[in-house]
Amino acid sequence: MDVHHKVAGVKASDAAGAHKKDLETQGKYGVKYIKYWFDEANGRIYCLTEAPNKEAAIRVHREAHGLVADEINEVTENT
Amino acid sequence: MDVHHKVAGVKASDAAGAHKKDLETQGKYGVKYIKYWFDEANGRIYCLTEAPNKEAAIRVHREAHGLVADEINEVTENT
Repeated sequence: MDVHHKVAGVKASDAAGAHKKDLETQGKYGVKYIKYWFDEANGRIYCLTEAPNKEAAIRVHREAHGLVADEINEVTENT
Repeated sequence: MDVHHKVAGVKASDAAGAHKKDLETQGKYGVKYIKYWFDEANGRIYCLTEAPNKEAAIRVHREAHGLVADEINEVTENT
């Protein structure tokens, strides 16, 4: 799970466009961007990702659109 | 989406126990705790919740186990 704390001025369409670029880029790094949650009022974005390691996930964001997350944590999913 | 930044010493079984209490408590506040993601190494927890408002979600955590999140954001889910 990564977190973009406050992406100034980002709209839902901007986030969707960036996510699309992630999906186009991720394959060569063995990464899968699964979902993201967006708070448009505050510019906050959470991205859930399957990746071999943090660095691979970061690389996809950097190459796809350059908006690297502020933090990233290795998590287990629970229901 | 809420975030517990660093819950000191929490184990996966502790998080599961707290989540179970959320599920037992949520009904009377119209809240649904859906999933959570846990980073045991850093004590970080993300909780995804459907709720009529932030206050209702906070109330469930407070009443169920007392571990209120450090922050909570209203988000839309996207794939």
